[in-house]
Amino acid sequence: MGALLILPVTGVGEVRAGDDLAGLLARQAELLEGDVLVVTQKVVSKAEDRLVAVGPSDPEGRRRLIEGESTRILRRRDELLITETHHGFVCANAGVDLSNVEEGWVALLPVDPDRSARRIRDGVRAAAGVEIGVVISDTFGRPWRQGVTDVAIGCAGVAAVVDLRGTRDALGRELVATEVCVADELAAAAELVMGKASGIPAAIVRGVDPSWLRRGSVAGEIVRSPAEDLFR
Amino acid sequence: MGALLILPVTGVGEVRAGDDLAGLLARQAELLEGDVLVVTQKVVSKAEDRLVAVGPSDPEGRRRLIEGESTRILRRRDELLITETHHGFVCANAGVDLSNVEEGWVALLPVDPDRSARRIRDGVRAAAGVEIGVVISDTFGRPWRQGVTDVAIGCAGVAAVVDLRGTRDALGRELVATEVCVADELAAAAELVMGKASGIPAAIVRGVDPSWLRRGSVAGEIVRSPAEDLFR
Repeated sequence: MGALLILPVTGVGEVRAGDDLAGLLARQAELLEGDVLVVTQKVVSKAEDRLVAVGPSDPEGRRRLIEGESTRILRRRDELLITETHHGFVCANAGVDLSNVEEGWVALLPVDPDRSARRIRDGVRAAAGVEIGVVISDTFGRPWRQGVTDVAIGCAGVAAVVDLRGTRDALGRELVATEVCVADELAAAAELVMGKASGIPAAIVRGVDPSWLRRGSVAGEIVRSPAEDLFR
Repeated sequence: MGALLILPVTGVGEVRAGDDLAGLLARQAELLEGDVLVVTQKVVSKAEDRLVAVGPSDPEGRRRLIEGESTRILRRRDELLITETHHGFVCANAGVDLSNVEEGWVALLPVDPDRSARRIRDGVRAAAGVEIGVVISDTFGRPWRQGVTDVAIGCAGVAAVVDLRGTRDALGRELVATEVCVADELAAAAELVMGKASGIPAAIVRGVDPSWLRRGSVAGEIVRSPAEDLFR
């Protein structure tokens, strides 16, 4: 495998409901065939009109909103809820958050982030004439480890999980169970050039293994069924 | 923030107990001041003589080894144990694994991966005259999401967690709780150029925010105390 280049996409400006997000990103990013474009959830939620007015003095209204986005509550501590969303994601406050959103508003997750990724992929193809992969990223905490990292909540045109089972390691021994979640690794890599405070809504990952650039789905490949999960 | 470049380090060859790993890596990688070198656990464990002979027909011996590396067993399903290691990591089989190790042997995690990172950092300074950050990476599964990703188990000369609390988002609103685990994101980014089967033991991440290049520690910054953890 060769080198990877990770480039922040700057100059997009504030995105509003109904904006042509794919067009805006294609204009600002010099995308090449085979690039993966990682787009943060916040800007997707804004373009898809997923902002809801909830005042800072209305914690009860916010809690009801979080419960409405959830199918199950796993843990509760003070204001923090860890819930399972209707997508099957386990995260804090069902992904409802208020950073980089105007005062008095909160952003909900996209209804179907894989579909959001497909729309951006199709829109970039129409605007710039290139085939790319798209990952929608969000910032999740996790048990047992401090700090948040960016993970994939949707993807299109790039594998979510690459199955290396049946391939051999460097010593010729068969790898028994190595399914690598490349979509989460792409989201994490992109975060390193975006920061949380700088208002950069996307990053390009260039040089990705071409075999990963196939139909992909976070819902289909990453979300673990409760039966397979030892921690649910 | 600017662009990041991620470069695989090739041509290192098979590493054996007692090898000067920092010297080997410095010879193969053209390291620049401010680079972060991500080194996989397997090659560190080999250099530090953490391989143990356990035959493939001795699952009982392997299980005893895993329990010896663990302070607590969280879950058990068939051959798979999810345990807490003496480092405080929660992972499968206490990190004891047999990929990329010769038949009849397994590799244990380094005794103190932060110290391993410091040694490599000091060794690279001695061999190549450059100050770098070092992350030791390993491949962990996680609850609720399919697939494995690489995370940091040790670091030196680079922050494990960057605290953005008190900084402001793009709309001027204070970010309340955004501690980003950049060490895990660096490990994930590096994995994208290493693969599992290609025998590439390290990768360079070039272009990292210089403010992150400070004293760092996975044990001190990432390992979550049981009291702070909602899932223990």
